[in-house]
Amino acid sequence: MSDETKIILPESELPTAWYNVLPDLPTPLPPPLDPQTHKPVSPDMLSAIFPPALIEQEMSQERWIPIPEEVREIYKLWRPSPLVRAHRLEKALGTRARIYYKNESVSPAGSHKPNTSVPQAYYNMKAGTRRLATETGAGQWGTALSFACQMFGMACTVYMVRVSYDAKPYRGILIRTYGAEVFPSPSDKTQAGRAALVENPDNPGSLGLAISEAVEDAATHADTNYALGSVLNHVILHQTVTGLETKKQLAMVGETPDVLIGCVGGGSNFGGLVCPFVPDKLAGSKVRFVAAEPQACPTLTRGEYRYDYGDVAGLTPLLKMHTLGHGFYPPAIHAGGLRYHGDAPIVCSLAKDGLVEAKAYYQKEVFEAGRIFLQSEGFLPAPETTHAIAAAIEEARDAPEGKVIVLLYSGHGMLDLAAYDAYLRGDLENYAYPDAAIKKALESCPKVDGF
Amino acid sequence: MSDETKIILPESELPTAWYNVLPDLPTPLPPPLDPQTHKPVSPDMLSAIFPPALIEQEMSQERWIPIPEEVREIYKLWRPSPLVRAHRLEKALGTRARIYYKNESVSPAGSHKPNTSVPQAYYNMKAGTRRLATETGAGQWGTALSFACQMFGMACTVYMVRVSYDAKPYRGILIRTYGAEVFPSPSDKTQAGRAALVENPDNPGSLGLAISEAVEDAATHADTNYALGSVLNHVILHQTVTGLETKKQLAMVGETPDVLIGCVGGGSNFGGLVCPFVPDKLAGSKVRFVAAEPQACPTLTRGEYRYDYGDVAGLTPLLKMHTLGHGFYPPAIHAGGLRYHGDAPIVCSLAKDGLVEAKAYYQKEVFEAGRIFLQSEGFLPAPETTHAIAAAIEEARDAPEGKVIVLLYSGHGMLDLAAYDAYLRGDLENYAYPDAAIKKALESCPKVDGF
Repeated sequence: MSDETKIILPESELPTAWYNVLPDLPTPLPPPLDPQTHKPVSPDMLSAIFPPALIEQEMSQERWIPIPEEVREIYKLWRPSPLVRAHRLEKALGTRARIYYKNESVSPAGSHKPNTSVPQAYYNMKAGTRRLATETGAGQWGTALSFACQMFGMACTVYMVRVSYDAKPYRGILIRTYGAEVFPSPSDKTQAGRAALVENPDNPGSLGLAISEAVEDAATHADTNYALGSVLNHVILHQTVTGLETKKQLAMVGETPDVLIGCVGGGSNFGGLVCPFVPDKLAGSKVRFVAAEPQACPTLTRGEYRYDYGDVAGLTPLLKMHTLGHGFYPPAIHAGGLRYHGDAPIVCSLAKDGLVEAKAYYQKEVFEAGRIFLQSEGFLPAPETTHAIAAAIEEARDAPEGKVIVLLYSGHGMLDLAAYDAYLRGDLENYAYPDAAIKKALESCPKVDGF
Repeated sequence: MSDETKIILPESELPTAWYNVLPDLPTPLPPPLDPQTHKPVSPDMLSAIFPPALIEQEMSQERWIPIPEEVREIYKLWRPSPLVRAHRLEKALGTRARIYYKNESVSPAGSHKPNTSVPQAYYNMKAGTRRLATETGAGQWGTALSFACQMFGMACTVYMVRVSYDAKPYRGILIRTYGAEVFPSPSDKTQAGRAALVENPDNPGSLGLAISEAVEDAATHADTNYALGSVLNHVILHQTVTGLETKKQLAMVGETPDVLIGCVGGGSNFGGLVCPFVPDKLAGSKVRFVAAEPQACPTLTRGEYRYDYGDVAGLTPLLKMHTLGHGFYPPAIHAGGLRYHGDAPIVCSLAKDGLVEAKAYYQKEVFEAGRIFLQSEGFLPAPETTHAIAAAIEEARDAPEGKVIVLLYSGHGMLDLAAYDAYLRGDLENYAYPDAAIKKALESCPKVDGF
């Protein structure tokens, strides 16, 4: 237990390798399937848009994958990140639990996303890629990738869902200040975008369409690759740097965690935190993993575990995951980063095997949790992060003396203040679905034989 | 010299006392004068709006003033702050200098301001004050004080210059989320505000008017005091926590600073950094202190050292300082925190005695410096902070091998992205004044005999 507020890992203790959970999963991960043939995807099908190192990581059975020195140098701009004992939150709650938060908001982009954008940019740079294309919804991932590309002298093109582009101008400005270009999607830069604009010049865009634009951009330019900010195995691999650090930091103060908590959109921050603890759990540790998601997009709590497309348009490989159906269109909650119909296959596999518990929260209760955190600990959490805080507060209620709760504080909310304004005005809606609506959404899933 | 990127002081090394430079100033500080009688102000004239402990600190000749344990507990939410070796900025500049930045953007409010808002709220709470009233221009100080009041369970009222209130809605939301109330100034809450609204219902407000409203609010409510975010001696006293930490951090890596740099608006972040090094300088150290200010408000570089009012309306005590005249109205540059006609008497006294060098920068060059910093170190500096970065870049140019440059990174720019947008669009103006304009502005200074 720590009397200090911040548990600081020395820079010399920054992990030198990421932990790959794939060889330790209780059930081997079902392979991604070709969207047309439903046959397993081969590595070279991915090589049009990903560099060899990332394709290798996506499928690797190596337990430890070295972090390149050039990536560690960039990580050191903010890593190791602090693990903070939330003394004042504990007092505000009157809990007997000890609450720690792993603060990933200290990165240049303000979230955990640079943990993977930096290595993704690095491996692409090494492979001769001159430019990366990506999509962004709320803007966190576009910011993180534009930062990473700038670090390695690469160009970066971000297709930002038009409705977000218009509503969150600060995100676009930050991306441009990093030296990247950002276009509202649908744009006139791609066939997919132009077709959408012909159909409707006022098309507000969608994450699915923005993915289609970025993938097309990458596939049709020899010097350009594509980068994804969550869901995939190599993304979770890179994010394990947070869980590995947390493990060392807890050991520094002699703590054994009872529960690890993260919010889940695509699953990368949660997966990064818990995966390094999977071997402990399989060896008998009682540590629990709690995934916090929105009631408005209840993938793990109410979705089905089956093959589905990663995108709305059905162009990506099929992934075995909990899904609400790729045709599911979540309402415009403020936690834009959690609006995803599926979840990372690694996280879903752990959930299927009973290693992960999932909880779903309403919008009003997560912002209330965010306010409690701000008013006790002082820092403003991102709307996504408030889900993890809500789950931590629930765990702290009636906790036995000395229960150790650890949450991943995935990002700050400085560019999300409009959402807090809506909360303060009482303008937030609590979205939820009757069972029939979930059942209907699941009808968009493809039928896949043999798996 | 440090191979590590971040030089981290353990929490146990957080200073236990602030350093008070008053007894060590080469020339004793001229006293504040009553605005009417021009006689020195007595402590009890201040007691209508300040608690006894702060009045005592304002005039103290004690060299060390203990930091209360309750204040240190709050400081630990983000302090000690990192001193960062800017390896990548050095490389981008191709300099032979070593550049370090003291990162005060890691505080909950995102700037150095909580270093003083926390003790100010604390001493007021101890004195039985139930509410603090203050003004804010760009919003940094209002954010910091609302955070501090929340930490001690006090109410807080912020009068925010109306033009900023309208242009920067995020600041007001953040202040309200901390639980404070914020009114656009002129407001209907005070006589001063109502009078201004009668005269012109569309009055855009000014810092001077907002000060008048906050002081009136404090003076007319027995349970309410006033708090100021810069200029005064006790504010600089509290800010010395940054210079004291920096000193320890430099010693940890065996560095001796050649130059310390900060931006100057009211002078608090600069004063806090350099004051703890004043005794060294007086004892023969060659360390230089460089104050960076805007050409649009060139107080130290082109103002006169004389008595002037602290506010535009001429209601506050007269302070001996470099001033452009309290009637000087600086143009609407984006570094709103540097738009002040005067400067802290402590900083001005050091400048007058040749211990501080001042440099003035144009808006375009500071934003260019900010872009260089962002694209090398990854973090987005506040517009105010870019002035210090511009000065550091100038110091690094043609520097001899091993020159040690230390700058105070006073805040992040996440809520100032509109300014970067203007920079990227080429919409920034470089304001400067002919000598005649400065001379004319100085005519607003009062005539004071005998000092």
